[in-house]
Amino acid sequence: MIALDWGTTRARAFLISESGEVLERRSADQGIQSVPPGGFPAAFDAIAGDLRRASPDAAIVLAGMVGSRNGWIEAHYVACPASPEEIAAAGMKVTLADGSPATILPGLSCDEGAFDVMRGEETLIVGLRLADGIACLPGTHSKWARIEGGRITRFASFMTGEIYGLLRQHSILSRLAQEPSGDDAARGTADGLAAAARPGGLLNTAFASRSEVLAGRLPGGAVGPYLSALLVGHEVAGAQALLGRSDTVHLVADGALAQSYGAALAAAGIAATLTTPEAAFIAGVRRLFESVSA
Amino acid sequence: MIALDWGTTRARAFLISESGEVLERRSADQGIQSVPPGGFPAAFDAIAGDLRRASPDAAIVLAGMVGSRNGWIEAHYVACPASPEEIAAAGMKVTLADGSPATILPGLSCDEGAFDVMRGEETLIVGLRLADGIACLPGTHSKWARIEGGRITRFASFMTGEIYGLLRQHSILSRLAQEPSGDDAARGTADGLAAAARPGGLLNTAFASRSEVLAGRLPGGAVGPYLSALLVGHEVAGAQALLGRSDTVHLVADGALAQSYGAALAAAGIAATLTTPEAAFIAGVRRLFESVSA
Repeated sequence: MIALDWGTTRARAFLISESGEVLERRSADQGIQSVPPGGFPAAFDAIAGDLRRASPDAAIVLAGMVGSRNGWIEAHYVACPASPEEIAAAGMKVTLADGSPATILPGLSCDEGAFDVMRGEETLIVGLRLADGIACLPGTHSKWARIEGGRITRFASFMTGEIYGLLRQHSILSRLAQEPSGDDAARGTADGLAAAARPGGLLNTAFASRSEVLAGRLPGGAVGPYLSALLVGHEVAGAQALLGRSDTVHLVADGALAQSYGAALAAAGIAATLTTPEAAFIAGVRRLFESVSA
Repeated sequence: MIALDWGTTRARAFLISESGEVLERRSADQGIQSVPPGGFPAAFDAIAGDLRRASPDAAIVLAGMVGSRNGWIEAHYVACPASPEEIAAAGMKVTLADGSPATILPGLSCDEGAFDVMRGEETLIVGLRLADGIACLPGTHSKWARIEGGRITRFASFMTGEIYGLLRQHSILSRLAQEPSGDDAARGTADGLAAAARPGGLLNTAFASRSEVLAGRLPGGAVGPYLSALLVGHEVAGAQALLGRSDTVHLVADGALAQSYGAALAAAGIAATLTTPEAAFIAGVRRLFESVSA
C-alpha cells in the first residue's frame, strides 16, 4: 500500500509491503496549505506519482490535514470513544488523476470538559495497538490520549511546543538565553523539572529564569532547556490530571522530544515505552486499512 | 517635593505639596533606555526642569529603573524582609545639573524558592501603608507581595501580561481572535475564569479556545477576554500557593486591569481593595522620604 501523512506544511509518503516493511519513503514540502483548490490530484502525483506508477495495484490511504475543511475533501471528525473500525468506516473516497480510488482518513473529536480535535495523530495512536493505556504524542500542539478496550476514549491537546517557541524567541527571556554549552542542558533540564513541581505555576516559574540569570545563578545557555523542561513538566502534570494517573505512558517521539519527554516522565515517576512517529504511522495506517478492506 | 517614577520606557514626574496633594504632573517618553551615558542630569531637566525651577526648595526623589545598572547610578537591591526605613536608608545620592542633590530609591530582592527582584513596585507597596496583608500589582510582569508587621517579607513575579501579549498577537490563537463586540467580553471572561479552575493546566486550556471557536461554541471576539481571564486566574492561584491564602487582596491598578483582576479575585472568593498606581506611588514616595529626612 501507499500511505501519506499529509499535513499543513509537509507531506510524507510511504510504500509499504504486505508484511509492513517500508520499501520507499518520500518527504515533500507540499503541505495542504500550498495546494490550490482542485489541485490535490496533481499534488498527489507530484509527491507520490513515481511510487504509484511503480506499484499500480497498491491501495492508497491518506491521513492528516488532507481530510480537513481546507484539504482535498472534508472527512468529518469521529467522536470519542472511537474504535479503529469506527475511524476506518468514516474514511472518504477520492479519485486520483488516473481515475483510481484513494481513502482519506477522518480525525477525532472529544467533548469532555472542553471540545478538542485531532487529525493525523489518531492514526499513530491506533498504531500503538494498545488495549488499554495512555499515549503521548509531543509536538507544537502535543496530544495525550486514553485508550480503553482498544478504543480511544478521551484525548487532550497542549500547546507546549508553540509556547516554548514564543518564550524562547519572542519574550524578554529570549534576550538572555544563549546556545547551551558544557552541562547547560543538563542543568537547565534539572532546574526546569524541579520548578515545574514548585507552587507558583508556569507564569511565575518561567519568569524566574530571568532573575536567576541576572543574579548569576543560572547560565544563559541553560535558559532554553529550563523553559523546555518546565513546560513539559507542566504538560505531564496537566495530562495526568485530565486523563488519570498511569504508571506507564506510551510515548510516540524521536530525537530531542523523546529525550525531554522521557526525562519529564521519569521525574514524575512514570515509566515510558518509546515508538517512533514513523513506526506508529505505518502500524496505524495498516491497522485502519485492514478495517477499510475487511 | 518632586517625585519621579522613572522606568525603562517612560518617566512620570509629580510635584507634591506637603499635605500630599499632586500640584502638577508630567509624563515623558524619556525612559532610561533612551538616556545616553552621563545624560541623566540633562534628562531630568527635560522631564521636570520646569517643576524644579518653579519650586527650587522641593526635595527630589527618583524611583524605578533609574536606580538599575543601566540607570543614573546603581542602587543595590535591599533583601526581603525589608521595612520602609530600610528601603529609604539604601537610597543613593546623585547631583542634578544645578548642583542640588536628589535621592534614588533602591529595589528589593527576595530569595525564597527562586530569586526575584523588583524596582519601582516597592514604592507603591509601601504606599499602601499596610501593617499586614497581600498586595497585587498587575502588569506586564505582575508583582505580588506579602506584608507582615509593616515589612515586605516576600514577593513573586508573574509574566502574565507578557504571555497574554504573545498569545494574543503571535500564536495560532491570534488568527481567530477578533475585537470583542456585544457580550463577547463577559462571555470570554466567564469561560476563561472557569477554565482556570479546570484540571489540565494553562497549556491545555489556552489551546481549548481554538477548538471551541472552530466548533462554533465561542465567538472569535471572546478569545482575547478568555485568554486574559485564564491567565489572571492562574496568576491568582499561583500567588495564593506561594504567599498563602488571604481573604482580602490589596490591588494597585486602574482601568481594564482593575476590572480583570477584580473579576478573577471575586471568582476565587477573595475580596479586593483598590488603589490607583498614582495614589500608591505618591503615598509611597512620601512615606519613604519621611524616613530619608528623619
